[in-house]
Amino acid sequence: MNSRPCIAVLGGTGKEGSGLALRWARVGFPIVIGSRDPERARHTAERLRGTVPGAELIGLSNAEAAAQGEVVVVAVPYEGHASILQSLRDILAHKLIIDVVVPLDPSNPRRYAPPPDGSATAEAQRILGPETPVVGAFHNISHLHLHNLDEIPDCDVLVVGDHREAKARVIALAEAIGFTAYDAGPLANASIVEGLTAVLIGLNIRYKGHGAGIRITGISKPAFPTHKTKDL
Amino acid sequence: MNSRPCIAVLGGTGKEGSGLALRWARVGFPIVIGSRDPERARHTAERLRGTVPGAELIGLSNAEAAAQGEVVVVAVPYEGHASILQSLRDILAHKLIIDVVVPLDPSNPRRYAPPPDGSATAEAQRILGPETPVVGAFHNISHLHLHNLDEIPDCDVLVVGDHREAKARVIALAEAIGFTAYDAGPLANASIVEGLTAVLIGLNIRYKGHGAGIRITGISKPAFPTHKTKDL
Repeated sequence: MNSRPCIAVLGGTGKEGSGLALRWARVGFPIVIGSRDPERARHTAERLRGTVPGAELIGLSNAEAAAQGEVVVVAVPYEGHASILQSLRDILAHKLIIDVVVPLDPSNPRRYAPPPDGSATAEAQRILGPETPVVGAFHNISHLHLHNLDEIPDCDVLVVGDHREAKARVIALAEAIGFTAYDAGPLANASIVEGLTAVLIGLNIRYKGHGAGIRITGISKPAFPTHKTKDL
Repeated sequence: MNSRPCIAVLGGTGKEGSGLALRWARVGFPIVIGSRDPERARHTAERLRGTVPGAELIGLSNAEAAAQGEVVVVAVPYEGHASILQSLRDILAHKLIIDVVVPLDPSNPRRYAPPPDGSATAEAQRILGPETPVVGAFHNISHLHLHNLDEIPDCDVLVVGDHREAKARVIALAEAIGFTAYDAGPLANASIVEGLTAVLIGLNIRYKGHGAGIRITGISKPAFPTHKTKDL
């Protein structure tokens, strides 16, 4: 029995999605990895269970994962972003959606290429409708840091969206895996936070780095979770 | 005699412009404060000389300042951004222009409100033409940190623009006053870097902070100037 909400990760076989799944699994959240190919999802789940023995972690199709999750993380490649949300719209209704997708120019990953809605997060919010809270977060956390469990990622999480309570829950979920997370404002700010990922990718290329990130300075925020597990 | 280039700061009576002027004056750059009102410019220059005795620091009209500067910092309120650049276009030709202006929604300073060009920096580059290099930088450095000379600002400088050599000079100018500065990519990234300022203002308001900033993590960059003074 687990009092923590089940987190489904659509596109959870990818680097970013599987990294987040790993982190949450390690602190006891039940996780469902979703993929277009259920077999690949099962394979990824098995691999992650090898890293975190005893984790509640299974693999299913994206639709089955979306149905099981109380919290649903959208971590698909941007090409499939709008179509998966449209096809799962009814299943996702009223759940907490965390969008981590960054639309990049396919011919130049240093370049942010937002859709007409202004950002992937805004696109998701429009498709799912105002009753389903969509929160953008984790865009700036390199998958390299997520997969190295010995490391406390030296990067903060900027959380954006128009649903205040949903943002508070996402901040708590980020804090639960060791991040300092900030309410970075309304949905209109999602383009800035997503776009920052393109800037960081450019820095990695230009300065031969791996996993560039950002830290917020100059404001004090409690270093420890400000939310109880029951609020997650 | 001073081998360092003269830096003119248009709108140098404002908080951000005067803070940058103060920092550069302290390390020996000759500075011209520009203002629509030359009397105000002289007054600000006198005040700053009181903080940095012996500084080469004078106040003039914006047009006179632009004529004297080899490097020209644009730090006017956004309302006057396009018009001052249009009126001084010929004087500014072929100089190094550093644009620090952030277009914010007048009714909500937490909201980035870019012009049709996409960013203030892109607007400046369009107005001044491709022969005059425009570099966006320093947007994310709070004036509070600049004016407190006892402090080494805990914030990095993201430098954007399409002129590579101009960016290298601006990085050197930022390093000369103690910042770690990064080439954050092309002019197209200016909206992200400018917009980040709106996110930081929102964090200050939401978390009751003063002078929120960012640090880049995860990549190593020399902590000391990589450019000689002669390249400034």
